[in-house]
Amino acid sequence: MPYYIVVLGTAGSGKTTLASALQDYLINNGMDTAIVNLDPAVEVLPYKPDVDAREYVSARELMRTQGLGPNGALIAAVDMLALRIEELKEEVWSLKSNYIILDTPGQMEVFAFRETGPIIIDTLIGEHKAASLFLIDVVYASRPSNYFSALLLSASTQVRIGLPQINVLTKIDMVPENIIYEILSYHDDPTILATKVANDKKASIMWSESEILEILEKLVSSEIIPVSSTKLLGYNNLYAAIQRVVAGGEDFYTEEPSEKL
Amino acid sequence: MPYYIVVLGTAGSGKTTLASALQDYLINNGMDTAIVNLDPAVEVLPYKPDVDAREYVSARELMRTQGLGPNGALIAAVDMLALRIEELKEEVWSLKSNYIILDTPGQMEVFAFRETGPIIIDTLIGEHKAASLFLIDVVYASRPSNYFSALLLSASTQVRIGLPQINVLTKIDMVPENIIYEILSYHDDPTILATKVANDKKASIMWSESEILEILEKLVSSEIIPVSSTKLLGYNNLYAAIQRVVAGGEDFYTEEPSEKL
Repeated sequence: MPYYIVVLGTAGSGKTTLASALQDYLINNGMDTAIVNLDPAVEVLPYKPDVDAREYVSARELMRTQGLGPNGALIAAVDMLALRIEELKEEVWSLKSNYIILDTPGQMEVFAFRETGPIIIDTLIGEHKAASLFLIDVVYASRPSNYFSALLLSASTQVRIGLPQINVLTKIDMVPENIIYEILSYHDDPTILATKVANDKKASIMWSESEILEILEKLVSSEIIPVSSTKLLGYNNLYAAIQRVVAGGEDFYTEEPSEKL
Repeated sequence: MPYYIVVLGTAGSGKTTLASALQDYLINNGMDTAIVNLDPAVEVLPYKPDVDAREYVSARELMRTQGLGPNGALIAAVDMLALRIEELKEEVWSLKSNYIILDTPGQMEVFAFRETGPIIIDTLIGEHKAASLFLIDVVYASRPSNYFSALLLSASTQVRIGLPQINVLTKIDMVPENIIYEILSYHDDPTILATKVANDKKASIMWSESEILEILEKLVSSEIIPVSSTKLLGYNNLYAAIQRVVAGGEDFYTEEPSEKL
């Protein structure tokens, strides 16, 4: 039984780059890995997908043939993909791999916050063990209230997708190290972040510092894994976090008779 | 000084329909009202915008001239709109109206969860009094874990936009009344919702019932206003909620020398 890894995050958070780097990492460590592209609107991919949503439906084609605008085409494309979910599942389930990475649409909203996205994920995963990764761009996260907002969005997405979810801080090569340590420190001591958020005029309209802290204590109860997908930094930690979810922490463990199928 | 109303919500939550109905309601009550369309990708509008983002940038044109896909075009269009924010502001600030409604892009993600959307809102609103409305489709909300997810998303968005935010339950003509009462009851007694969410396999992976309740107590501390924009139901309550934010609750009050400019 392969393990499934679902890659989630807002547009530009680095989903496709991470999916590709994670595949390289797993292959380099002797694991056979497949990637499923679930984005019917993506134009360029850094990896060669083993299963590709664009062979089922194309957002660009929908614009041309159905007279839809870009917004409508993105939504319709995901809905149409869901209509062909049994064919898609058959193709995905025929893959022989230790790990199957599901790379989700560029814009998370058309996928996670509508009915069809979670149906696609549920059907493809079935009874397989799985983890979802929620990507947060470190440049965006370097403002405390943005990070608070991203953690709320991660929780909102987790409730929709319903998998054990790992928050991942992406593009860490793009900021000084002290910013990364600062963000990691929030997970050790949420009062640091709560104080900063409460001092941000925008974020403090809704709640007092003590209320922000109460919410944050839940949101930071899980760790965040810093990675750079271009420099392959942090992938040992990311892999360990995934393994803790799908295989109880065993290193490079797979339930297949052979690691390399 | 006009009051500003920002309409937010995921794709399909009813933003454009509500903006149009709210304008009708305000005009019917003697208030002069203008609508600003901030969506560079919308194809059809039910109202005639007083200021239109599409005169500054068109997502469809960007696809054609820049060779972008639908995803990239939506993002680039909002970013390009931000580059022309001073012109846009000048046009908006020249409007003579008691209320100015800002209708935001179809997909919230390209707007609320990137840098440019909040900059556009901040600049357009300036020192004016303003409220944001976060729309939640009642059909979507009728599953308890979806509603929990929507409240988390609303909070995440509020932190980004930084205005006093009112949650609005839209399309209430599409479900039986008992579903609406059920959702309203969560705001009187969050334990009802917490129990339901904890019983949902998807939502309960992350937190225990007591942890869900702790989060929910913060999220439901503000009310939710049920409306139907097609049948103009609930608009008195919606208007009253907006007035409590912008004018301290005074009925049909405006800071202009005349109600109808």
